[in-house]
Amino acid sequence: MSTLAKLFRFSASLSRGVSAQVCRFHQGAVDRMPAHDAEFDSAKDRLGKLSEEPDNTVKLQIYALFKQATKGKCDVKKPGALDFVGKAKWDAWNKLGDMSQDDAQKAYIDLVNSMAGPGGSDTSEPAGADERYQGLKITTDKKVFRIQLNRPSKKNALTWQMYNDIAAALGDAAEDKNVSVAVITGTGDYYCSGNDLSNFANVKPEEIAQMALNGKVVLSNFVKTFIDFPKPLIALINGPAVGISVTVLGLFDAVYCTDKATFHTPFSQLGQSPEGCSSYLFPKMMGNAKAGELLLFNKKITAQEACERNLVTQVFPEDVFQKETEALVSYYGSLPPQSLKYSKTLNRSAERELLHKVNEAECDLLVERWQSQECINAIMSFFSRKANL
Amino acid sequence: MSTLAKLFRFSASLSRGVSAQVCRFHQGAVDRMPAHDAEFDSAKDRLGKLSEEPDNTVKLQIYALFKQATKGKCDVKKPGALDFVGKAKWDAWNKLGDMSQDDAQKAYIDLVNSMAGPGGSDTSEPAGADERYQGLKITTDKKVFRIQLNRPSKKNALTWQMYNDIAAALGDAAEDKNVSVAVITGTGDYYCSGNDLSNFANVKPEEIAQMALNGKVVLSNFVKTFIDFPKPLIALINGPAVGISVTVLGLFDAVYCTDKATFHTPFSQLGQSPEGCSSYLFPKMMGNAKAGELLLFNKKITAQEACERNLVTQVFPEDVFQKETEALVSYYGSLPPQSLKYSKTLNRSAERELLHKVNEAECDLLVERWQSQECINAIMSFFSRKANL
Amino acid sequence: MSTLAKLFRFSASLSRGVSAQVCRFHQGAVDRMPAHDAEFDSAKDRLGKLSEEPDNTVKLQIYALFKQATKGKCDVKKPGALDFVGKAKWDAWNKLGDMSQDDAQKAYIDLVNSMAGPGGSDTSEPAGADERYQGLKITTDKKVFRIQLNRPSKKNALTWQMYNDIAAALGDAAEDKNVSVAVITGTGDYYCSGNDLSNFANVKPEEIAQMALNGKVVLSNFVKTFIDFPKPLIALINGPAVGISVTVLGLFDAVYCTDKATFHTPFSQLGQSPEGCSSYLFPKMMGNAKAGELLLFNKKITAQEACERNLVTQVFPEDVFQKETEALVSYYGSLPPQSLKYSKTLNRSAERELLHKVNEAECDLLVERWQSQECINAIMSFFSRKANL
Repeated sequence: MSTLAKLFRFSASLSRGVSAQVCRFHQGAVDRMPAHDAEFDSAKDRLGKLSEEPDNTVKLQIYALFKQATKGKCDVKKPGALDFVGKAKWDAWNKLGDMSQDDAQKAYIDLVNSMAGPGGSDTSEPAGADERYQGLKITTDKKVFRIQLNRPSKKNALTWQMYNDIAAALGDAAEDKNVSVAVITGTGDYYCSGNDLSNFANVKPEEIAQMALNGKVVLSNFVKTFIDFPKPLIALINGPAVGISVTVLGLFDAVYCTDKATFHTPFSQLGQSPEGCSSYLFPKMMGNAKAGELLLFNKKITAQEACERNLVTQVFPEDVFQKETEALVSYYGSLPPQSLKYSKTLNRSAERELLHKVNEAECDLLVERWQSQECINAIMSFFSRKANL
Repeated sequence: MSTLAKLFRFSASLSRGVSAQVCRFHQGAVDRMPAHDAEFDSAKDRLGKLSEEPDNTVKLQIYALFKQATKGKCDVKKPGALDFVGKAKWDAWNKLGDMSQDDAQKAYIDLVNSMAGPGGSDTSEPAGADERYQGLKITTDKKVFRIQLNRPSKKNALTWQMYNDIAAALGDAAEDKNVSVAVITGTGDYYCSGNDLSNFANVKPEEIAQMALNGKVVLSNFVKTFIDFPKPLIALINGPAVGISVTVLGLFDAVYCTDKATFHTPFSQLGQSPEGCSSYLFPKMMGNAKAGELLLFNKKITAQEACERNLVTQVFPEDVFQKETEALVSYYGSLPPQSLKYSKTLNRSAERELLHKVNEAECDLLVERWQSQECINAIMSFFSRKANL
Repeated sequence: MSTLAKLFRFSASLSRGVSAQVCRFHQGAVDRMPAHDAEFDSAKDRLGKLSEEPDNTVKLQIYALFKQATKGKCDVKKPGALDFVGKAKWDAWNKLGDMSQDDAQKAYIDLVNSMAGPGGSDTSEPAGADERYQGLKITTDKKVFRIQLNRPSKKNALTWQMYNDIAAALGDAAEDKNVSVAVITGTGDYYCSGNDLSNFANVKPEEIAQMALNGKVVLSNFVKTFIDFPKPLIALINGPAVGISVTVLGLFDAVYCTDKATFHTPFSQLGQSPEGCSSYLFPKMMGNAKAGELLLFNKKITAQEACERNLVTQVFPEDVFQKETEALVSYYGSLPPQSLKYSKTLNRSAERELLHKVNEAECDLLVERWQSQECINAIMSFFSRKANL
């Protein structure tokens, strides 16, 4: 079996396999059950009703704590190096060492509660989100259209669906006469952790080429929306920003961030390549010598460095960030809307055509990269590291 | 009557109306004249002989002081909200409150003296200016060609005539073999307060479209001259710079400023849009996220911020600005002139064609903007604010 | 005789003439020889066996010390102003004033030893350099290809041969599957003092036009190699950088320097014009107002200023420069090579065609400049100043 096929079998089986294991253990391994029975049973029940599937790291932790709680210390043989899923699970369990079954049960209950809440349903997503959108909260107030990335449990990572929804929402905002400016921000500690790598999981080997082509269509259309958005576009970077959420910043008209924000585009580390027109706009805004460090060499930069490199307009201390930026955005929303729209369009016009070409070239390269050995190895390594906690 | 027609009636009548009032009052309202009669009469006389018409703010102040001096405290009914001129005048008079007639007469005399000088003629313009140019002082010394914006009483605001004269002067400097480099600077506290908004006053409603087309020709030719100027061009920014005087800075080869300078391009606030190739060059020099703040969101920046954003080469403390920059300019004038000229032309060549296209697109948009409701409302609001002092 | 012809006669005769003089004096002027005879004789012998010819400044110093050692204080008539060579030699000798013959002999011996070593052969070039290259040390280690400019006695100035060798070496590195990234750095105190002006010496007047055309081919091909290099390119700037070694930095993907580095492009001072695509890339990375100061006005900037102007990625204190940059380069060499290569190529693609046009335009202008009166005067003045020590 090729490494490529292995990766996708790995990701898929990790995703499905652990869930299955969790369920299986719920039924078969109750003989040595310790103290907190009722709470433990409730936690098991609520695990199956989460509105959002936990990521692989959490699944492995759930698996390990369940094993420890019901079986005690890990006493089975370590699987071979090529059994990625088995080894990841064994590692997670074994890592718990001499933790008592009672403590493991408590930790299991706490972990489930942290995701589902003690009473039951998942409450980590704030209320008020437009019901049409998964993971996004979209509002319009006083001519300010706002997209809030709203998957804090996933650090606001973007699913393919969210790419499409953001593009569609911006399309609406472009047409809406009640909208003067658009704002993108994030819920929770992160602004956005970038492309959700689980977009690459659960893909059968024979589907990879098609996945890459589909991904290109989604990404290309997403970036196209930013290139053509005819009104001022403002980012309020409330925390770390990664990957695509950083690269498209070159297409914004103002970028404000807290001093806790960081900016990271680890493309080559993941065997991938730049998007969001960053391959053209980053060298333009900060010179090749600084752009290369970000786009080729995976340098993570601070808020202040991002401001010095013209990626960010201004940095605010975290405690005043919300208040100061709301005042600015509110003022911007009050300005003559036609002047804003025509001036923004004018600013973009000299290189709109070039930006579209750059976007296509970037997406074409990603189709190749996503199917490359380097990318597959890097993502496999990423999941393995996460699995090892 | 449309709002558009109202504005231009307003501006025109404010301009003509107040002058007429001033004259009328000079003849009709002498019955209650207080102490300083001879000086007051002299001031009235000299008011009609000013080489340059005072701006609307000053005219209103003259009107108010004249009323207070001759009639005493404002005791007439406040005009309705739509009578812009009447209301502006009433506000100015009423604002003087209980000022005595004698004090008002003294203030009137002082105000006229500040414009015309106690002896007579207007001496606010320094001596030595080339007689061919209104509001400009043009000199050549040791291969340095210098244009000094020379309307300090108007903060060096640019009339249409000054646009044409600067373009013509630069045309001469381009051809002159005794000129190696060209310098633009300002007289007084301001570098330049931008386009003189009175360019938009005194225009009849039916002439607006033609005014906009004429304005485009003037502005387009002005910026074209900067794009094509074949020798190094240096700005010495002696104080605040506004509008067009900021936007063309992207076309200069060195920009030195004092630490008292500020940079402000309040286009959207005035219902207008960027010019001077700033819609292309500002994003290029400082990235979209910082350019947007200036060109869309009216942010006024300090000298230091302008330097960080690459609009300015270096900032000097005000007390050494003159000396330090003269030394630099003098050195630049001593360099091999052909090398300077060919190198400057080379630096420009890669994007000369694009800059001309950008200039045309910017001017075309301004033709639309100048006739737009947003622009008319903004300028009306500007004059009303000034009229309210 | 035209000034142009004079210059090249001057340079050539200075170069050849002084050597000849040195030899002639070695044979003819031994009558008044002082104390250190054996050492002095040895020094004379070794002078003729240097692997590299000393530059004109050193030759003049050798000449002067030899005269002082063998003839004593300068007592001949000062040559006329147009006898450049004679005057330069007279000035050098006369400057030694009352230095005793014994001291002059000692100084002569020390000077020769500093170039040739007390035992004999020139050891100023570190060992280990690839034997195929003059003045370059080329190595590959752990996927990092390294070009070390290796003429410390000439501050790593570039001969025409070195231009060609660097281009050829980068061509090899582009093809070599064992190379992920390429690094350029310098041996000794300087990174690179730019184009070796002796490239312009020893040229007969009738050969100038051909020299200019040949120079264009070499330079154009050199810069072309940087534009098209398909892998990440990193500069480690260990000290001052001048001319072409600065201008091509805009084509690098990362530039690290010590805090002792400076950056200087004195083109107009030398009657020349920018190359290395700097006429396009410098305005792009730092705006016209800062680029003009470097490319037109000969401003020398510090490491920190170069970093603020986006020419440099990061500045390191000199004592950690080597260690920190080696760690970075080593990490870069370990990244997925295909991702690096494709991403680098992508970053370049949007303006590759434009960069080639800029390179051609810059080289065409230099063909004109190299034959111009201004350039000839400037280089003549340069050699005269050096000759005056």
